[in-house]
This record gives sequence, C-alpha cells and structure tokens, in this order.
Amino acid sequence: MSKFWSPLVNDLVPYVPGEQPKMANLVKLNTNENPFGPSPKVIEAIQAELNDNLRLYPDPEGEALRQTIADYHKVQPEQVFLGNGSDEVLAHIFYALFQHGEPILFPDVTYSFYPVYCGLYNIEAKPVPLTESFEINPEDYQQPNGGVIFPNPNAPTGRYLPLEQVEAVVQANPDRVVVVDEAYVDFGGESAITLVDKYPNLLVSQTLSKARSLAGLRVGLAIGHKDLIEALNRVKNSFNSYPLDRLALAGARAAYEDEAWFRNCCDRVISERERVTEALENLGFEVLPSKANFVFARDKEQSGETLAKGLREQGIIVRHFNKPRISDFLRITIGTAEQNDALIKGLQSL
Amino acid sequence: MSKFWSPLVNDLVPYVPGEQPKMANLVKLNTNENPFGPSPKVIEAIQAELNDNLRLYPDPEGEALRQTIADYHKVQPEQVFLGNGSDEVLAHIFYALFQHGEPILFPDVTYSFYPVYCGLYNIEAKPVPLTESFEINPEDYQQPNGGVIFPNPNAPTGRYLPLEQVEAVVQANPDRVVVVDEAYVDFGGESAITLVDKYPNLLVSQTLSKARSLAGLRVGLAIGHKDLIEALNRVKNSFNSYPLDRLALAGARAAYEDEAWFRNCCDRVISERERVTEALENLGFEVLPSKANFVFARDKEQSGETLAKGLREQGIIVRHFNKPRISDFLRITIGTAEQNDALIKGLQSL
Repeated sequence: MSKFWSPLVNDLVPYVPGEQPKMANLVKLNTNENPFGPSPKVIEAIQAELNDNLRLYPDPEGEALRQTIADYHKVQPEQVFLGNGSDEVLAHIFYALFQHGEPILFPDVTYSFYPVYCGLYNIEAKPVPLTESFEINPEDYQQPNGGVIFPNPNAPTGRYLPLEQVEAVVQANPDRVVVVDEAYVDFGGESAITLVDKYPNLLVSQTLSKARSLAGLRVGLAIGHKDLIEALNRVKNSFNSYPLDRLALAGARAAYEDEAWFRNCCDRVISERERVTEALENLGFEVLPSKANFVFARDKEQSGETLAKGLREQGIIVRHFNKPRISDFLRITIGTAEQNDALIKGLQSL
Repeated sequence: MSKFWSPLVNDLVPYVPGEQPKMANLVKLNTNENPFGPSPKVIEAIQAELNDNLRLYPDPEGEALRQTIADYHKVQPEQVFLGNGSDEVLAHIFYALFQHGEPILFPDVTYSFYPVYCGLYNIEAKPVPLTESFEINPEDYQQPNGGVIFPNPNAPTGRYLPLEQVEAVVQANPDRVVVVDEAYVDFGGESAITLVDKYPNLLVSQTLSKARSLAGLRVGLAIGHKDLIEALNRVKNSFNSYPLDRLALAGARAAYEDEAWFRNCCDRVISERERVTEALENLGFEVLPSKANFVFARDKEQSGETLAKGLREQGIIVRHFNKPRISDFLRITIGTAEQNDALIKGLQSL
C-alpha cells in the first residue's frame, strides 16, 4: 500500500487470466482459444487497412462493424455496443447497469471476473449455488437483486441452460437487467439475442475471441434494448472514446462475413469435444455435459492438481481452479485432433 | 433515463472527440493526427503478426513492449504501464490514484477529458485558471488537492511549461500524485520522464497517437515509480486483462525501434508549425506560442465560429471549442505542406 493509492486499490483482488506461456511446442489447452485460425478473409481485411491511415483515429462509434453485427443478428445498430474484448464490455455493464444498492446474483461456480468487477466498483456480490450437478436453477434467481449475470454455456462447467429457462430468469426480474454472457454459445447453444426485442431488461454479451478465433484482436459486444446500449455508450465515452483500433474493426467485420469458415470451425470443435468426452469417460473421468469449446472433468482417483501437474510435465497445459466445489476438476480446452490425442495419451500415462 | 441505469449514468457528460468525417478529400486538421504515416517498419512488424496466431490471446502484460519502452526511456519495465490509448491510461490514473476526497487540480483551459473522468468516478474537479496569456503558473498548484494533472504542452493552447517549472509543481505536492500528460511533448518539449526516479509522486503519460503516427492503433502508456504503476495494474487487471491486441503490441514496439523516422516526422511538423504560425500572424492572427503539432490562434476581427464554418465550406476542418475564454480561437492541426497551404489560402479568402 502506498499513500498515493486511492484507498480502494489496496483491497482489489484482480482477475488472474490463464497463463500465456512463452515457450513454444506446448499443447496449450488452458485458455479456451480456438484451435483453428481466423478466416483468411479476416487476414485480407486487416491487410487492406495496414497502411498510412494508421496515423488516423478509428471511427469511435465503430459504425460499420455495428451495422454488420446488427444485420447478422437481425437487430438495429443502436442495439449493438462494442468493446475491447467482452471483458471490457462486462466492466462497463457492471458500472452502467448494476449499481442499484442491491447485490448482483451470479452462480457460485462461474466466470471469476464477475466478483472482480464487483470489487472494482464496490458492488455487493451474491453467489447463487449451482445445483449438485452444477446446473443453474432459474428459480434461484427469484430474489431481490441489483442485476443478474451468468454465462451460457456456463464457464468453467460448460453446462448449457436451455433458452426457455434463460427466458424464465429474464421474466422473473422485470425491474433489473439480466445479462447472458454468451462467450461460448456458438459451440452448440442457442443465443438469447432472439429475445432482446421482447425483453427491455435482457442484455446479451458475446466475444470474437472464441468461436471466431480472434482472441488476439480484442473485440467483444453486447446486444439489447437501445436504452441499455445508451447507458453503456455514456460510460464508454466517459472512459475511452476509441477502444477498438482500425485493424480490429476491419478484422471483426470480415469475421462476420465468412459464415462458412465460422460454421466449419465450430463443427470441428464440437465433433472433437464429443470425441474427447468419450475418451475421458473411457479413462474413468466424470465429464460434465458441455456446449462450450472446453470440457470440465474430474477423475475419480487423482486430484485435479495432481493431474494438471502431471500433464504440465509432459508439456500439456490445462486449467485447474483451486476453489471450493471444483478443485477436483480440470478445465480442458478442445484443441486440434493432434492436441487432443496428446492430452488423452498424457492422461493415460498418469 | 431508464430505470435500469445505475443512477450516476444519468448525470454523465461524456467526452466529445473531434469529428471523424467519412467524406474523402477533406483537409482534416481537427484531431491533431500526424500528417505523416507510421514507419514502414511498423507496417512490417504488424504484417509479421498477421497470421493464425490471432486466435491466441496477446501477452496480458505486454512484456516485450514494456521492455522496449523502458530501454528507450532508460527506466525499468516495472515503471511502465500500457493502455488502450492514453485516454484509457488516464481513466485508470483517475481511478487508482486520484480518489482522496479532495479536488483534482487542472488548468481551466485544458484537455476536456479530465472533468469527464472526474464525473465518471465522482471526483471533485477544481479548475485552476491559466494566466491572462494562457500559461500555467506553478504557484497556483500550491493548494490542498487530491492530485494534479496537466498536459505539457497544454492542449488546446499548445503552450509549453519548462521542465524546472514542472518540477516545482511536483515538489510542491509531495503527498499527491502529479500527472504530466505528454501527448504532444515530442514536438519540441522536454519530457519529465527524466525526473521519475527522483520523485515518487510524478507520473508521466504519453501516447503513440501523435508523434508516432499511430492514432489508429490505440497505444498509450504511463511511466513513474513502480508503486504508482502497481496501482494502475491492479485496476487494469480488475477491468480488462488484455487491452492491447497482438497487432498493436507488435506495431508499437517497431515504432520505438525506428528513431530516424520518428525524428524526421517531428522535425517536419515543427518546421511546418513555424511556417503556419508566421503565415497566420501575417494574416493578423494572434497565435499562442506552440510546442505541439497544432496551433491555437484567434483573429482580431472574425469569431472562431465564423472562421471554422467558413473553412468547413471549403472542405477544411479545424476544431473550435465553444467554451469560456477560448471561443474566439481555432485549434489547427499542423498538416502536410499542401494541407497547410490550403488552410492559409482558405483563411485568406474569409
């Protein structure tokens, strides 16, 4: 603690992202990146912007990209908010829409950035336990709150909540914003974006980091009623006018324009996920049903920590959370067929 | 106002960035961009990163870039903080270092984002009047405060405060952080970075948007004592782990590695600035002495608004602020020789 710090800085418990190791030749299955690269059209689109115009500011409103996304999801551009990755979008959501003097509800086992945002903005957090089988029970979200947020599919469990149950949570909270964080929805889930015109309190966030293979480009978004988007824009424009650079804006647009590439990548991930699930089950693992690009699994005999260490010694990295309820589990990103084979072989040897 | 908004959102008065018009063929002298493009080495470095690795997250710590900048400025990497443009860096500074229950001091005529950050974080702002000749008087900053910030050179005046006077402000406030926002320092000023090892309360922010011709890439930084940087990192890592994408990290590094290009661009801007200043004076303008890549000037006869409108009709855009003390002035970015000729010719005709 330094006398120069704002007092709250001392109490901040920052988010710890998955390791980005600098060693080559690792089988990197720890941060849910897509094993397949982005569309060649993304590369071309960035290439076309890679010139002297980098001296100029980007469009602060990202109008062209917002139009592309709006067309893709059949909403209006005024319903689309852009940010530097969905983490920035979520931070602005907590600030702009979740400060009502009541606790924010989210699952006890979920994306660990949510309590961090609560800490940053001094918002009370109320974790809501998942069921024994790690499912979200919509009825648990019928209690006083300042807002509700959950990922669908949930992370790190991978479990998916069917759309009618998402809708039940939204309906149960007409005076509060319900945020559905759909970072992983394209790997087999159905997006709640189809419901935003029906519910003014529903906000859906997505990212280009997972299904669209652009974690390195930092683009996220939220879609909802234009009044919710207006709140986010006010905060964003009081924080940083230009969070998306010229190259990211161009690359992101192209990612939406190559539907075939996107579908193909998702299909391959899904098919590998099913194969990995089966192989893990054959090894005696319990694997939660996943609609994400990762699986969450525990061995009946060896602890998550032991397995993660054993894999690391073989150059395979997965994510282990030393947290209540889930310390036995490993979160394993679905990689290429070769990477997944290495993983399975690695676990067999432990 | 919507019932879903956090109450403070209703009172936010967002920053209004200079217009980014979509029409071609404009003489765009309104947002202080560099008239010259970035180094070809920047383009090459981004090119080299433009591949399948975009599927992977960037280094959240930006270690390689921080090392490059540290070497360049002869400090330690732990003294360098990176952000998505200096606007994001400044936002984190206000949050992490300026919340002490006392007002933040900055000039009454200055970068208009400072009061916006105060509004965002509910921090009291106390504007300190510049002198009659629009200069910062260090003695005015010897009063109780929660922190001090000013650009050097100041914007939109362009006036530069000599380093010994910057030092006087820092010395007068040993218990508070003094932030020197050096967005424009490379156009003839001397950086206060040379003083950071002497003063633990001095923090210097810079940007790659101006002298390094990379407004389109969104990279900013702060340099100071490692304890100040630690506060910024805590806030950043509670907000968004990866604010700089892979391409921006690579391009920014290369920008520091081509010193010759950088110096040449700055020299050309400075020499054009002197020529524009003289031409404006010949037209009867009062031009404040500038060490930035813009001049701040007023005509003795026509209002700033009239002139800005008249220029716009000729396809030349400059910035006019309808604010107390400066509504007669135009802020004119220094362009290429051709653009500056067009500006002078345009003003002659009015």
